[in-house]
Amino acid sequence: MKVSKLLDKVRKQKPIVHHLTNWVTIYDCANIVKSFGASPVMAHAPEEVADMAKIASALVLNIGTLTTDFIEAMKLAAMSANSKGIPVILDVCGAGATPFRDIKCFELLDQVRINIIKGNASEIAKIAGENVQTKGVDAGKVEKNLVSVARHLAQARKATVVITGKEDIVADQSKTFIVRNGDEMMTHVVGTGCMAASVIGTFTAVHSDLAEAAAAGLACYEIAAEQAAGKANGPADFKVKMFDAVFNLNGKTADLKQRIIKK
Amino acid sequence: MKVSKLLDKVRKQKPIVHHLTNWVTIYDCANIVKSFGASPVMAHAPEEVADMAKIASALVLNIGTLTTDFIEAMKLAAMSANSKGIPVILDVCGAGATPFRDIKCFELLDQVRINIIKGNASEIAKIAGENVQTKGVDAGKVEKNLVSVARHLAQARKATVVITGKEDIVADQSKTFIVRNGDEMMTHVVGTGCMAASVIGTFTAVHSDLAEAAAAGLACYEIAAEQAAGKANGPADFKVKMFDAVFNLNGKTADLKQRIIKK
Amino acid sequence: MKVSKLLDKVRKQKPIVHHLTNWVTIYDCANIVKSFGASPVMAHAPEEVADMAKIASALVLNIGTLTTDFIEAMKLAAMSANSKGIPVILDVCGAGATPFRDIKCFELLDQVRINIIKGNASEIAKIAGENVQTKGVDAGKVEKNLVSVARHLAQARKATVVITGKEDIVADQSKTFIVRNGDEMMTHVVGTGCMAASVIGTFTAVHSDLAEAAAAGLACYEIAAEQAAGKANGPADFKVKMFDAVFNLNGKTADLKQRIIKK
Repeated sequence: MKVSKLLDKVRKQKPIVHHLTNWVTIYDCANIVKSFGASPVMAHAPEEVADMAKIASALVLNIGTLTTDFIEAMKLAAMSANSKGIPVILDVCGAGATPFRDIKCFELLDQVRINIIKGNASEIAKIAGENVQTKGVDAGKVEKNLVSVARHLAQARKATVVITGKEDIVADQSKTFIVRNGDEMMTHVVGTGCMAASVIGTFTAVHSDLAEAAAAGLACYEIAAEQAAGKANGPADFKVKMFDAVFNLNGKTADLKQRIIKK
Repeated sequence: MKVSKLLDKVRKQKPIVHHLTNWVTIYDCANIVKSFGASPVMAHAPEEVADMAKIASALVLNIGTLTTDFIEAMKLAAMSANSKGIPVILDVCGAGATPFRDIKCFELLDQVRINIIKGNASEIAKIAGENVQTKGVDAGKVEKNLVSVARHLAQARKATVVITGKEDIVADQSKTFIVRNGDEMMTHVVGTGCMAASVIGTFTAVHSDLAEAAAAGLACYEIAAEQAAGKANGPADFKVKMFDAVFNLNGKTADLKQRIIKK
Repeated sequence: MKVSKLLDKVRKQKPIVHHLTNWVTIYDCANIVKSFGASPVMAHAPEEVADMAKIASALVLNIGTLTTDFIEAMKLAAMSANSKGIPVILDVCGAGATPFRDIKCFELLDQVRINIIKGNASEIAKIAGENVQTKGVDAGKVEKNLVSVARHLAQARKATVVITGKEDIVADQSKTFIVRNGDEMMTHVVGTGCMAASVIGTFTAVHSDLAEAAAAGLACYEIAAEQAAGKANGPADFKVKMFDAVFNLNGKTADLKQRIIKK
């Protein structure tokens, strides 16, 4: 896949990516979008979310620090995004950790159109109806074949499904990509998972094949992570270098380094 | 202008700067105040904002992630600040992006005394009644002469007006400063605009001529940005170096490097 | 004290540390826990805090940006933590700055079991009933002998008391530790105090003697700070290096460098 084509489109179109996300990693989510050259906006008041979604090209929802009111605002934003036809990405952050999280995820999935469901292995397994226990917001162990879990969920929810991990799985109703980029150092920094959802939002904002866009975005992000990890003294230094590697990412390098496999 | 005199006052007096700000850049807003040697405090509960404003020397309001309740808390804080006679800075972050934002900005401007109105070109143009469309929270294009917009708004609202951008404009009812410091790298980092409001709050906390204080604060902040940009590998590295350049900023260097023009 | 034994336990057990904390430093609180190898989780919805506390090994409460509703959620989380028997750490951030803060601190202390009360000198003095004025969220001056304040409060509240500062004091009902690690650079970065509470939470999650755990955690954290300060160009660079020093901290080095004195 020529990921550079999508990277160029992001940098030229500078799409607005609207977020209703968690309060822990909200800065990093905004900043990764900005580092890719796009324009993040964070707004959650029920009085304005529909209007904000209307001027955006993608909507990213992340339930990391959810409340009941916040989920209601997400629904308003998503309904606006749905009617405008822009992609809605749901990061099911921490699904499986508490019944409340699961209930709210299913509410969102049932009441609005979610175009991309994104999580780590245990979170997606939970949403897919597998019997797992999430370890807070960090990934727990899942025994099942993850590609199969992703594909089934994509069918069941008529959505694109992204499972992030050592290898990322991106499945829609007709195809599956495996993204083999990234570095173990990402697991030692809070927010790399949340940022992945923002990156997916950024790339789907400029490309209509959502699975392709998600895979390309993840590959670019994780190539930057690989470049940063090689020079980093630890996770905090790595994070600084990763943002800069995203900002400086060369399209040709990205095309050479991308390890996206179509299954 | 001898910006070093104000910088010294900030470092010696260590004023408390109370914020009701957005959840995206709240850390950076606090940390830039701290890096200048002052003492940030963030508090938004309606039960305590008036008391907190009473122990502060400036109040910074930023509507970036506003809600109705949050604006009400801002009013309580501002009324307390007004009665104590400390400056109130309003960052009209994202004005023009949604009707809700504009309504709430005007509510604040009409119901409490705002001493400094701060925004980028399209945000201030919106508040001044010009016909513009803000691009989310990033600056859109404005055709009008910005100095004239700032001056008229300063007259109309009997306030100091700050338009940040490649050149910053600071206008009160009798004079205008242009601040020609800063670096393009600032536009690639989320939060540099929000931090500018916090810097203005910090400097107005120690100097009664608000336009002078705002111009001096912006110059110091942006000189630090210039120093950081020269050595930075990208925006994230730049940001780290900018905070440290603020912390280490030498008064004499600041006086030499400041490019404030009085009009 | 062999702090390395506790450090190893943190890294091996990777305990979940549940936080209800402030919105300013929430990222750093999560990230310091992660840098020590443990698993942070931030969740504040009243519908889920009890469940989240049940899967955690420690609960950290920080009132930095408190609201009435948020305190109520803290109580629910703490009651769940109490019934599970995991330690509850309360950072009385900004106590003394407003009456509202003090009232809410005492409510928490009276209505749920707080195992560790943590603050800077003026905050703890306020909670102990001394007559002090806190300077926002930064430490004010306290005349009284701090060890005596800590010991009396530990007796009165049947809790472990931690006073952070140039020297940290950790007192329970039968013993007192003084931790002489750390660096002045920590005072120039927003969030080092909040992170200290998260570190205490992380170490108490794996060791039942809470005073020992708190002292060991603080020593490890502050040894990392010492290592970082020696190489740092300013507070922002220091902060990056401190996280990495935590991540890379060698157990033997920690045992050699720890300056914990038992009184």
